Amino acid sequence: MLRDEDARWMDVALALSGRTRGRTAPNPNVGCVLVAGGRVVGRGWTQAGGRPHAEAMALAEAGDGACGATAYVTLEPCAHRSPRGPACSDLLVASGIARVVAAIEDPDPRTAGQGFARLRDAGIAVTVGTGADAARRAMAGFLTRQALGRPVVTLKLATSLDGCIARADGESRWITGAESRAHAHLERARHDAILVGRGTFATDAPRLDVRLPGLEARSPARVLLSATGSAPDGWTVLAAPEAIATLPGDHLLVEGGARTAAAFLRAGLVDRLLLYRAPILIGGGVPALGDIGLHRLAEAHGRWQMVDARALGSDRLEVYERGPCSPVSSAI
Amino acid sequence: MLRDEDARWMDVALALSGRTRGRTAPNPNVGCVLVAGGRVVGRGWTQAGGRPHAEAMALAEAGDGACGATAYVTLEPCAHRSPRGPACSDLLVASGIARVVAAIEDPDPRTAGQGFARLRDAGIAVTVGTGADAARRAMAGFLTRQALGRPVVTLKLATSLDGCIARADGESRWITGAESRAHAHLERARHDAILVGRGTFATDAPRLDVRLPGLEARSPARVLLSATGSAPDGWTVLAAPEAIATLPGDHLLVEGGARTAAAFLRAGLVDRLLLYRAPILIGGGVPALGDIGLHRLAEAHGRWQMVDARALGSDRLEVYERGPCSPVSSAI
Repeated sequence: MLRDEDARWMDVALALSGRTRGRTAPNPNVGCVLVAGGRVVGRGWTQAGGRPHAEAMALAEAGDGACGATAYVTLEPCAHRSPRGPACSDLLVASGIARVVAAIEDPDPRTAGQGFARLRDAGIAVTVGTGADAARRAMAGFLTRQALGRPVVTLKLATSLDGCIARADGESRWITGAESRAHAHLERARHDAILVGRGTFATDAPRLDVRLPGLEARSPARVLLSATGSAPDGWTVLAAPEAIATLPGDHLLVEGGARTAAAFLRAGLVDRLLLYRAPILIGGGVPALGDIGLHRLAEAHGRWQMVDARALGSDRLEVYERGPCSPVSSAI
Repeated sequence: MLRDEDARWMDVALALSGRTRGRTAPNPNVGCVLVAGGRVVGRGWTQAGGRPHAEAMALAEAGDGACGATAYVTLEPCAHRSPRGPACSDLLVASGIARVVAAIEDPDPRTAGQGFARLRDAGIAVTVGTGADAARRAMAGFLTRQALGRPVVTLKLATSLDGCIARADGESRWITGAESRAHAHLERARHDAILVGRGTFATDAPRLDVRLPGLEARSPARVLLSATGSAPDGWTVLAAPEAIATLPGDHLLVEGGARTAAAFLRAGLVDRLLLYRAPILIGGGVPALGDIGLHRLAEAHGRWQMVDARALGSDRLEVYERGPCSPVSSAI
């Protein structure tokens, strides 16, 4: 029963962590909720730019109400002091918090267990592991940067039922419907950067922004994959997928086209696949993917597993993540 | 409340109707259940070859128990006497049945309302329309033959997430998993005939049968789409999709490959789409469909609507039927 309650409150903290996904780099997008007597006394999430941290924001909201409360936090509270603010583990100790429930340990070597140790040393009860899988997904950008030295990469594909992204003559507006396109814009707002290849740049460049009311300012940085040529105004150019390690920000959205998508898959640099599918057949159109370097069908199995699926109008969105047989590439 | 009960019993009759789908031509695959005092007293379904009819089988099972019962039947009971047996409407009158609930009227001009009239003239209460949509789906073969002079056509596609049916070098075993393949074999057993093109014939011909324990004898007739060449032993050859009107049987399954599938779509001769999808990416493979004659993307929308979806192991099956904007071709 206590475990169930912990899991429910952690879900709240995880939802809060999503509010600034794509805008907290180099810090993780942490969520935190403070609960006393079954009621929320404070909520926080890492602010855009990385400060204040989630715990600091929640403690400020709770004030004296934090004394004796339980803090649910998606990541181990930090143990390192910085010119930009005090360590969250120190703040939690000072607040009189009675218990901390954290989803996962912070891999940053400046914290990595020391946050928990400081809390326990101060007599605070600490539980670790509640909602760990969901937390790894929610903070995949930060965790991928820590583990692999590069941003987490999402590949977006919008196809017909027969896997085409355009008619043979290039006509691609529209395959998916308004609901899918709005959802795709929301995904853009949750990424630090969008990358396209030369062909998509030539046809779609002016449109690679967030066109949702109130979210126009959230348009991510624009990145062009191109082995040759200079950077257009306001764009960053990468010569190869492997160069993504140099990008600022921990969330990269690869939007097209077929050759660019294939280049990232071939390099083992796609962590998450967003597949928007419209209930139409095109026939003889432009395939979604070029050569991804698959040598046998047997190699293709086990690389992807569906983690979410939903209807978007008459379309369907499926979200896949790396499966157990998926080759993963780090920064090179 | 009475309506709900009617709908539930009609579901039973519809389930029975599926038992001989693909084996009753030129007769419809009707299902019938007789209910008295909330209990089933007789069940019937059109037998392979078309006789006995569902009502005759159910009445034989019920015997005297039919007196005062309600008959749920997926199609209007026939009104025409035949050398092969008496008219079902006469049998129902003679049995002392009190009420008949039918899903739809029989479009066969020899019955077309006359079955219901004969029942009503005998003082039997008649309700028409319960489960009508499901009945049209369950007996689509017969109804398509009556309305369009040709079998109902199901197109099966088994693809990767990126819409490929093979690797670039032709390797296609296996994209989908064992559960999908078993389901596809069950679909074969529910069709009168399977059709493939020259390419699929060359690579897969020996395998176009039902390989499910106990259902081996249900393998459908084999049809080859080929503009030239003679019929291989045991095969029927069609020169063009439009020639399907000449086939015996009311259910045709089109299994491949990409050009054959496209030819049927181009001709407006696909009524139902079975889309088996494996959670794999192939990249640069063989596309599922050749040119289907689409001139603008806008034409593609509204042609297909999903009517069923389910997981099959790690694959997913989606079933589509014609949408409101779908061109339909009759026999030519």
